Amino acid sequence: MTVTVVVGNPKPASRTLTAASLVAKGLRQDSEPTVIDLVSFGSGLLSWGDPAVAAAVQAVAASELVVFASPTFKATYTGLLKLFLEQFDGGTGLADVVAVPVMLGAGPVHALAPDLLLKPVLVELGATAALPGLYLSDRTFQEDGVIERYTDRWRSVAQALGTRTTDHA
Amino acid sequence: MTVTVVVGNPKPASRTLTAASLVAKGLRQDSEPTVIDLVSFGSGLLSWGDPAVAAAVQAVAASELVVFASPTFKATYTGLLKLFLEQFDGGTGLADVVAVPVMLGAGPVHALAPDLLLKPVLVELGATAALPGLYLSDRTFQEDGVIERYTDRWRSVAQALGTRTTDHA
Amino acid sequence: MTVTVVVGNPKPASRTLTAASLVAKGLRQDSEPTVIDLVSFGSGLLSWGDPAVAAAVQAVAASELVVFASPTFKATYTGLLKLFLEQFDGGTGLADVVAVPVMLGAGPVHALAPDLLLKPVLVELGATAALPGLYLSDRTFQEDGVIERYTDRWRSVAQALGTRTTDHA
Amino acid sequence: MTVTVVVGNPKPASRTLTAASLVAKGLRQDSEPTVIDLVSFGSGLLSWGDPAVAAAVQAVAASELVVFASPTFKATYTGLLKLFLEQFDGGTGLADVVAVPVMLGAGPVHALAPDLLLKPVLVELGATAALPGLYLSDRTFQEDGVIERYTDRWRSVAQALGTRTTDHA
Repeated sequence: MTVTVVVGNPKPASRTLTAASLVAKGLRQDSEPTVIDLVSFGSGLLSWGDPAVAAAVQAVAASELVVFASPTFKATYTGLLKLFLEQFDGGTGLADVVAVPVMLGAGPVHALAPDLLLKPVLVELGATAALPGLYLSDRTFQEDGVIERYTDRWRSVAQALGTRTTDHA
Repeated sequence: MTVTVVVGNPKPASRTLTAASLVAKGLRQDSEPTVIDLVSFGSGLLSWGDPAVAAAVQAVAASELVVFASPTFKATYTGLLKLFLEQFDGGTGLADVVAVPVMLGAGPVHALAPDLLLKPVLVELGATAALPGLYLSDRTFQEDGVIERYTDRWRSVAQALGTRTTDHA
Repeated sequence: MTVTVVVGNPKPASRTLTAASLVAKGLRQDSEPTVIDLVSFGSGLLSWGDPAVAAAVQAVAASELVVFASPTFKATYTGLLKLFLEQFDGGTGLADVVAVPVMLGAGPVHALAPDLLLKPVLVELGATAALPGLYLSDRTFQEDGVIERYTDRWRSVAQALGTRTTDHA
Repeated sequence: MTVTVVVGNPKPASRTLTAASLVAKGLRQDSEPTVIDLVSFGSGLLSWGDPAVAAAVQAVAASELVVFASPTFKATYTGLLKLFLEQFDGGTGLADVVAVPVMLGAGPVHALAPDLLLKPVLVELGATAALPGLYLSDRTFQEDGVIERYTDRWRSVAQALGTRTTDHA
């Protein structure tokens, strides 16, 4: 069972990373997620063919569950995250991956963004985006209970789909 | 195992109904779907408390898999379908229902509408919207193979989630 | 100079109506808006050809500025408003109309809905949707200053486009 | 009168650039647009403070009309374009700029993307996004007449708003 966290924050080791890891661990309590902090790729994301980026794409595509997390910049996910998503094949790049869209923001006004904006890109890559988008307050997510309620609610769905994928193998 | 088709076309017995039924049967080949043709409710949808509408809401909420289908009017789903969705409780009205957004149009220009516009309403009602939105040509869906490819691709996901729900009961 | 307010709230004489009228008067201080409270049409909206609905469509299409206002139901505008918008011709039904999308909600979480969901339908009808969508708190809009700041900011844009339309005539 | 074209294609001197320039010239026939080909900034877009990027941001913010153009990657605009938009101040960065969202794609299935996805980011930056989004076929835009019909239809709106801005100065 492979769980991966993809972090699209231009600041390394961000609160986005912390939050996304909590979501991943909450959904798959038996598994330590692999973390891909996209900022570490630097200009490797601006073209195609960078070996470190290619390895990350492969790791994501081979995962059962991937949390795609971004801060909210200008009411949507970051360009940094989009650059990474552009490295995948359309329609199949995330086939059989349960992909979870997570965004963090300072206030609630952009709460629709994960479902209206980030999830459709994951769907375009063929992901199984079975869980609702999750929007978190970047100031209170560690103690407001939102992540815990979300992961308690949706863990069994993630589990059912992960098991299915395993059975296919 | 209960499968339901909800049809939001103001014309009774529409191609939308035919297409939605094919999608439902393709995803659950062992089950004859119940069809709810919303136009039959007439002005019962314009308020709250109509008994026939309330029974339909209950039937949908108790289903494992529901195909929500609409023609494309003004680049999005119909007001008729939205009136029905407004009868459900926010956040929980479609809890544990695998909800599949399907739209039909004359040409491909509105192909993003099921994922960008219809699916978010189902998510708001608490549905498990695990499958990508499906956009169909209202002229060719009976022979273009789009429904068959879609249902072949996503049947196992619908099955995994349906089984899960059954296990819960 | 004709200004119209279209209200898509299933409750007559709603706060939506009050808010929309304030927006209209703020944008065009010289003009008393005509108010169309869609709930009054009842089942006339469920088909095509109702004379009262047809007259309302004509009045809207002949206006220079129209505020389209809706409460937020299930994270988007109402089915009632959509039924009315379906009465217009696609691409041209709102040609040369400056259309302003306004939504009201109990809290800020759906604040993206006017721009992401309601405005695109107006654009599809050919409207000049030059102003940003406006999202209001249905509890505080009378005193929170949001409408005043919005209308102060955008009045000159509405004016420039209204003048243009007049010059064409 | 300043007209600028912003091109978010990772390939330099792309068809996106050609198309965007045609749109700009069609809307403002008296004015040669300044072209900003974002790929030329390289990794300068991955952080804040690059002088060439800062100069481009200033030039855009000081323009009356700006065409923001992108190819369609994974059903939406590019990460490259988003990186540039993140350099602007939220709410005010594009104040008094008439911003026109243009996207190109191989086929029509993503035709809703300019209005549903790209325009809202421009609105978030305070732009006057008065014109509908424009979606072009990257194979036929030079001869299919779509740009000409669009610019003929919307030139007077762009003109009315540009004149207004000039009057303000």
